[in-house]
Amino acid sequence: MFAVMQGASRGDDVYEEDDSVQSLEAHVANLTGHEAGLFCASGTMTNQLAFRASLLTPPASILCDTRSHVFRYEAGGLASHSSATVYPVEAIATQGHHLTVQDLEREFISDDEDVHMAPTRLISLENTLSGTVMPLQEIQNIRRFAKERNVRLHLDGARVWNAAVAEGCRLKDITSEFDTVSLCVSKGIGAPIGSVLVGDKGLIKKARHFRKMFGGGWRQAGGLAAAAHWCIENVWPTMKETHTLAKHLAEGLEREGRGAKVYIPVETNMVFLDLAGSGIRLSELSRRLEAEKGIKIGNSNAPETQTQVRLVLHWQISKQAVDDFVEVVKDMASTTTTPAMETLGQDRNKAAYGSR
Amino acid sequence: MFAVMQGASRGDDVYEEDDSVQSLEAHVANLTGHEAGLFCASGTMTNQLAFRASLLTPPASILCDTRSHVFRYEAGGLASHSSATVYPVEAIATQGHHLTVQDLEREFISDDEDVHMAPTRLISLENTLSGTVMPLQEIQNIRRFAKERNVRLHLDGARVWNAAVAEGCRLKDITSEFDTVSLCVSKGIGAPIGSVLVGDKGLIKKARHFRKMFGGGWRQAGGLAAAAHWCIENVWPTMKETHTLAKHLAEGLEREGRGAKVYIPVETNMVFLDLAGSGIRLSELSRRLEAEKGIKIGNSNAPETQTQVRLVLHWQISKQAVDDFVEVVKDMASTTTTPAMETLGQDRNKAAYGSR
Amino acid sequence: MFAVMQGASRGDDVYEEDDSVQSLEAHVANLTGHEAGLFCASGTMTNQLAFRASLLTPPASILCDTRSHVFRYEAGGLASHSSATVYPVEAIATQGHHLTVQDLEREFISDDEDVHMAPTRLISLENTLSGTVMPLQEIQNIRRFAKERNVRLHLDGARVWNAAVAEGCRLKDITSEFDTVSLCVSKGIGAPIGSVLVGDKGLIKKARHFRKMFGGGWRQAGGLAAAAHWCIENVWPTMKETHTLAKHLAEGLEREGRGAKVYIPVETNMVFLDLAGSGIRLSELSRRLEAEKGIKIGNSNAPETQTQVRLVLHWQISKQAVDDFVEVVKDMASTTTTPAMETLGQDRNKAAYGSR
Amino acid sequence: MFAVMQGASRGDDVYEEDDSVQSLEAHVANLTGHEAGLFCASGTMTNQLAFRASLLTPPASILCDTRSHVFRYEAGGLASHSSATVYPVEAIATQGHHLTVQDLEREFISDDEDVHMAPTRLISLENTLSGTVMPLQEIQNIRRFAKERNVRLHLDGARVWNAAVAEGCRLKDITSEFDTVSLCVSKGIGAPIGSVLVGDKGLIKKARHFRKMFGGGWRQAGGLAAAAHWCIENVWPTMKETHTLAKHLAEGLEREGRGAKVYIPVETNMVFLDLAGSGIRLSELSRRLEAEKGIKIGNSNAPETQTQVRLVLHWQISKQAVDDFVEVVKDMASTTTTPAMETLGQDRNKAAYGSR
Repeated sequence: MFAVMQGASRGDDVYEEDDSVQSLEAHVANLTGHEAGLFCASGTMTNQLAFRASLLTPPASILCDTRSHVFRYEAGGLASHSSATVYPVEAIATQGHHLTVQDLEREFISDDEDVHMAPTRLISLENTLSGTVMPLQEIQNIRRFAKERNVRLHLDGARVWNAAVAEGCRLKDITSEFDTVSLCVSKGIGAPIGSVLVGDKGLIKKARHFRKMFGGGWRQAGGLAAAAHWCIENVWPTMKETHTLAKHLAEGLEREGRGAKVYIPVETNMVFLDLAGSGIRLSELSRRLEAEKGIKIGNSNAPETQTQVRLVLHWQISKQAVDDFVEVVKDMASTTTTPAMETLGQDRNKAAYGSR
Repeated sequence: MFAVMQGASRGDDVYEEDDSVQSLEAHVANLTGHEAGLFCASGTMTNQLAFRASLLTPPASILCDTRSHVFRYEAGGLASHSSATVYPVEAIATQGHHLTVQDLEREFISDDEDVHMAPTRLISLENTLSGTVMPLQEIQNIRRFAKERNVRLHLDGARVWNAAVAEGCRLKDITSEFDTVSLCVSKGIGAPIGSVLVGDKGLIKKARHFRKMFGGGWRQAGGLAAAAHWCIENVWPTMKETHTLAKHLAEGLEREGRGAKVYIPVETNMVFLDLAGSGIRLSELSRRLEAEKGIKIGNSNAPETQTQVRLVLHWQISKQAVDDFVEVVKDMASTTTTPAMETLGQDRNKAAYGSR
Repeated sequence: MFAVMQGASRGDDVYEEDDSVQSLEAHVANLTGHEAGLFCASGTMTNQLAFRASLLTPPASILCDTRSHVFRYEAGGLASHSSATVYPVEAIATQGHHLTVQDLEREFISDDEDVHMAPTRLISLENTLSGTVMPLQEIQNIRRFAKERNVRLHLDGARVWNAAVAEGCRLKDITSEFDTVSLCVSKGIGAPIGSVLVGDKGLIKKARHFRKMFGGGWRQAGGLAAAAHWCIENVWPTMKETHTLAKHLAEGLEREGRGAKVYIPVETNMVFLDLAGSGIRLSELSRRLEAEKGIKIGNSNAPETQTQVRLVLHWQISKQAVDDFVEVVKDMASTTTTPAMETLGQDRNKAAYGSR
Repeated sequence: MFAVMQGASRGDDVYEEDDSVQSLEAHVANLTGHEAGLFCASGTMTNQLAFRASLLTPPASILCDTRSHVFRYEAGGLASHSSATVYPVEAIATQGHHLTVQDLEREFISDDEDVHMAPTRLISLENTLSGTVMPLQEIQNIRRFAKERNVRLHLDGARVWNAAVAEGCRLKDITSEFDTVSLCVSKGIGAPIGSVLVGDKGLIKKARHFRKMFGGGWRQAGGLAAAAHWCIENVWPTMKETHTLAKHLAEGLEREGRGAKVYIPVETNMVFLDLAGSGIRLSELSRRLEAEKGIKIGNSNAPETQTQVRLVLHWQISKQAVDDFVEVVKDMASTTTTPAMETLGQDRNKAAYGSR
C-alpha cells in the first residue's frame, strides 16, 4: 500500500487537479451507480455534506433510525450545519432489526403548509447498522415511499461494503436506490483515512463547495486516494472471509462462554457480546486476551458494571486469533467464581477487537 | 379591557421606555419568583429566546418530552435558532402522564469530552401538557437532577397558570424551580397577544438582545401590555370555575355519548374526546353544534377517519354551553346508526371548542 | 385611531383568520404592486424574513450600502438567521448619496463555481437612507443589473413612503422594481406597531412559515392592523407637509445657527445637524428646547464631544414647533462663548426630534 | 519525506491515540508559545475552528482587514459556522500595507447593551498578507487594544513562518501575542496536507470537539503529521533563501520588463507583477515560460484584459529558474509591439509560479 501511496499524483485537490483523487472518485461513483464522487476526510464529513447539500432552507426535518450514527455520534452536526430537526424513528415492526415504511409513516410530516411544522425533507438510512443488514426489499419499499412524497433518501453506508457482501449482491444494487451515499474507506476497507460521497453531478458540485466551507478541501490528497483505491481492490474481496470468522467467533463465544450471549444477530463482521450471564469480567477478559494472546479489545479499564462489548473483525484478523479468543473465554468461564450479573451497562461508542 | 388599552402608555419598548410594558414585566416576574421579565409577541418567541439566550455554543442537546410544543410545533426553531439537537424523551414510567427523572436519565448525555456527542445542556418541561399537570414533587426531583449535572431547566409554561390553579398552589411554587419560564397571556388568560419570559436579569438582558435580532422588538406595545395585565388580574381568578366546567363536560360526554371516551385525564381546561366507540361523526357533530347551539368546534370538514378532538374551555364558556354540548351528543348517540369504528386519526394541531 | 382599533376583527392571525390583518396585507400589496403581504411586529422582522425566505442555501452573500440598517442595526441578524455574508458597498460614485451599479460591480461575486467564494445572491437597497432619496432611474438600473445576474433585489423601505412623496410618484413606481419590500407602518406612518413585507405569493408563504419559527406569529393582531390601515389613509397624505417643514427647519438652523451645518441634504423628513461650528452644546440645546418650548430631542445627556444630531420630523410636528426650535438656536448662537470645535462624534443610532 | 511518512505511527487520531500527530501538535505549540495544538486538513478548517471555538453566542462581530482570506476566500464560513458578522476594515493609515489600531477603532463596536448592535468579540489579523509583513510593534499595539476591550485576537498565520523569517525574530515573538493562531504546513512549508491550530488547552479541546462536528476528525493521520514535522525541520530553514530569490526576481522583472511593475512591496516570497506598462501579454508569457524553460505559472488562458499576476516562490525554485524567468521577460519586452495598456483586471485567487 505504501508503494502505491508513493506513486500517487501530487496535484492540488482543491482545484480538482489531482489524478489519483479523481480516479478514486470516478471508481467509487461507478461501483455505486452514481454520477460523481467526492473524497473527504471522514464519514462524518460525507454524511454532513450530503445533508447540507441536499437540504434547501429550513424549516426541514429528517427521519432516521433512533440509533443512527448521524443522530447520535456526529456531535449534533445536523442541527448546527443544516439547521435540521431530527425526528428519530424506532424500528418497531422488526423489533429493532431495521426500519420499515410503516415505522417511517408514524413520524412523517407532510408539507401541508402548516406553519407550526418542519416538514420531512430527507430520510437517512444506515446499512449496516450494528452490523446487521437492511433487506434490499425494504430499501426498495422506502425508496418508493420517499419518491412519492418528494423526499430525498440518503444512505450512511460507512459499512455498505459489508452489506453488499452479506446480501451477495452488487454494491450498486443497494446504493443506486439512494440519492446520496456516504462510504468509508477506512473501517472495513482498511485505508488510513477517508470516505467518499456519491450522488449526481449537481449535488457533488454543491457538496464540494460546502467541503471548502467546512475546511475539508485538502491539497495533495493523492497518496490517501491511492491507498483507498488499493484497499477497495485488495481488501474488499477478503470481506466474505471476515464475516465467516465473525460467525465462527460468535458461535464459539456462546458455546464456550457458559451464559455469555451474543445479543445482536451476527450478519457481517460485528459480534455484540454480553458477558453478564457468564460471570466473566470484561476488564479481566481484556487484560488476559492481551497478555496471553496479544489480542487488544481495549476494555481493560471497563467498569465492573459493563458487561457488553462490541467486537469488530477486520481483514487482518486470522482464524487463529478467533480461536485464541474463544479459548481464553472458555478458560475463564470454567474457572470463574463470580456470580452471573444482570446486564447493566453498555459501551455504546467505543469499538473493540480490531480496527474501527 | 379596551378602556385599559386606551389608557396605556405610549413609550417605545425597544428603548425600554414604556411604562405599561415595564409594569407588566415586573408584575409577572414577581408572580413567578424571578428577577425580570420580557414581554413578547408569542409563546414560540419566549420559548425560542429562552433556549437561544441560555445555550452557549454547540454542540449542545436538549431533553424534552417527545410531545413537547417546543419540539413538535415551533417549526424546527430549536435547530435553526440555537443549533441544538433534541433528544426526545418518552414518559415511560408514568405511561405518558409526565416525565420523571428516570426517563431523563435514559437520554442524558454527560459532558465527558467524547467528541462524538452533543452533551445535554438544558432540560425543557411543559406544564400543563395536553391539559395534564406535572406533580410539583416531580418538578423538584428534576430540578435537583438538573442542578447536580449543571444543566439548565426551562418551563414552557404557556398554561402554567392552569397548573397552579389545579395544584392549588402559588404560581411561584412551580415557576421558581426553573431557570426560565415562558408564560402565555393569550390562551387561558385571554389577552389578545403576547407571552412573557422570566428569568434572572442577565438572562433577560441577553434575551432582549436576541428579541431584537428576531425582529421581536416592538415599538408602542403599551396597549397590549395593559390588556395582558388586566387579564391576569381579572380572567385568571375565573380559571378554577373553567376547570370545573371541563370536568362537567367530560362526565357528560362519557355518560351520554354511548361509547364516546375521554382519553386523557381532565385535570384543567381540556377535554380530549374520542368518538370512535359512539359511531358519532365528528364532522356532523361540529355542524350540529354550530347550527343548533351556536358552538364552534371548527371540525365541520374533519375527515371520516378522524374520531378524536381536543376541546379547550375558556373563561367565556358558560355552564349552559356545556350542557348544550352534551345534549347534542346525547341526541346524536341515541339516533346514530353508524357502527362504532376504531380510532384511526387525530387532529393533533388544531385547537377546538373555544380559544386556543 | 382607537375607535378603529376597537372595531377591528378578533380572528387568530396565526391561522390567517383575521379580517383586519388580511385587509391591511392586501391593501399594502396593492399599493406596492405586489401579490401578497405579511404584517409583522417590526421592520427588522420583515427585513430578516425577506432575506431568510429569499435565500436558499449558503454559501451566499449580500450586497448593500455599508450604512444599511440591515447590516449595521439589526444585531447581526443576517449572519445568524440566513448564514449570509455581507459585502458592504461604499457609494463612491455619488460621494455617499446613494449606491450605483458601478459601486455594486466592484463587490459583485459571480457564481462561477469557485469553491472559495460565497456568490452574491441578493442586493438590498434602502430608500430613504439617512432621509435621502435614491433616484428612480438608479433603481431601474440596479434592477436590470440584478436581473441579468439572476440575483434577487430587496428594498428596506421602512421609509419608502417618504421616498414616493419626495419623488412625486406612486409608491408602486418604486416598490414594484423589487422582489421584496419591507415597509414600516410605525415611523413616518405613525401606527403604534408593525411593518409589512410584500412579495409574490410563494415568497410570502415561505416568509409566513419563517415568521412562525421566529416567534412572530401573533394571535389577535386585528387591532394593530386596523390602526396601521387607518394611518396609511390618514397620516401618509400629510407627509408632504412634513417634508416642507423639515426643509424650513434646516434653512432656519443654517441661517440662525452661526456656523451650525446641515451635513446631509434634506430631501424628506430628516435634518442632520452639526453644531460644531456654532459652539452650541448639544446637551444644553436639548435642555433648553424642553424647558422653554416643550420640544424633546432626547440628548440632554449627550457628551461634550458629540456635536451631530439627527432630527426626525413627523406629522404631529407643527410649524410653530419648528419656529420655536430655530428661535432657541438663534438665541443660543448669539450668546454662546464656547469656541467652535471640530466634529468629533455622532449619535448614529438614537433618533431625535419627534417619534422614530 | 516518504521514508518519514512510512515510519509514522498508525494510531487513531479521533481518539488522540496517534504518536506522530501528537508529536507534531506539541512541536508547533512549543514553537509558537502556546499550550496545545490541533492538526487539521486545511487552513480554512483551522481558521474556522478558531472562530467557532472562540465565540460564544451571537450577536457577535469580527473585525479583520477587508482583504482577509477568512472574509473573502473561505466560502462565507464565518457566517455559516459561527453566525458572526464581519465588519471589514480598510488599512487607511498605512495606505493598504497593514491594519493599525487607528483603523480598528473606526469599526469597533463596544458591548454597551444597545440591542441593535452585534458587538465586536474578536479581531482577526493575517500575517503575511499579500506577502507583506505586519510590523511586530503594530501587533503589540493591537494586542493591547484587544485586551483592554476584552476582545479575542486571532492570527491567520498560514504564512507566519515567512513573517518570522522576514522579521528575523523567533516564531513565538509573533504568535504568542495572539489567543489563537492558524499555521499552514502546506504552502511555504511544503508538506502535502494540513494546518495546525494553536491556543490554550481549553480552546483546543473545544476546537477538537468542533473538528469532529465539521467532519475533520481523521483516523490514521500519522503519516501526514510526520511529513509536516519533517518539513518544518527541513524546509523552513531554507525560507530565507527563497525570500532573497523573490527580491531578485522582482528586481529583474522591473529592470528588464520595460514598464512592468511590481505593485506590492516584496517582503517575503511573493511577487505581484503588473505587465500593463510593458505590453507583454500574460497568456503569452505563460506559454513561453513553460515551453522554453519548463516554468509553469498557469495563466496560459488568462484573458487579454488581465495584466496582473501573483508569483509565489517556494523552496524548490532555483536561482536558475528565476534568471530564466527574467530572461524570457526581457526577450518579450524587447520585441513586443503591443502597446502598453491600463491595468484592468487581476487574477485575485489563483496562485502562480510554484506551489501555493
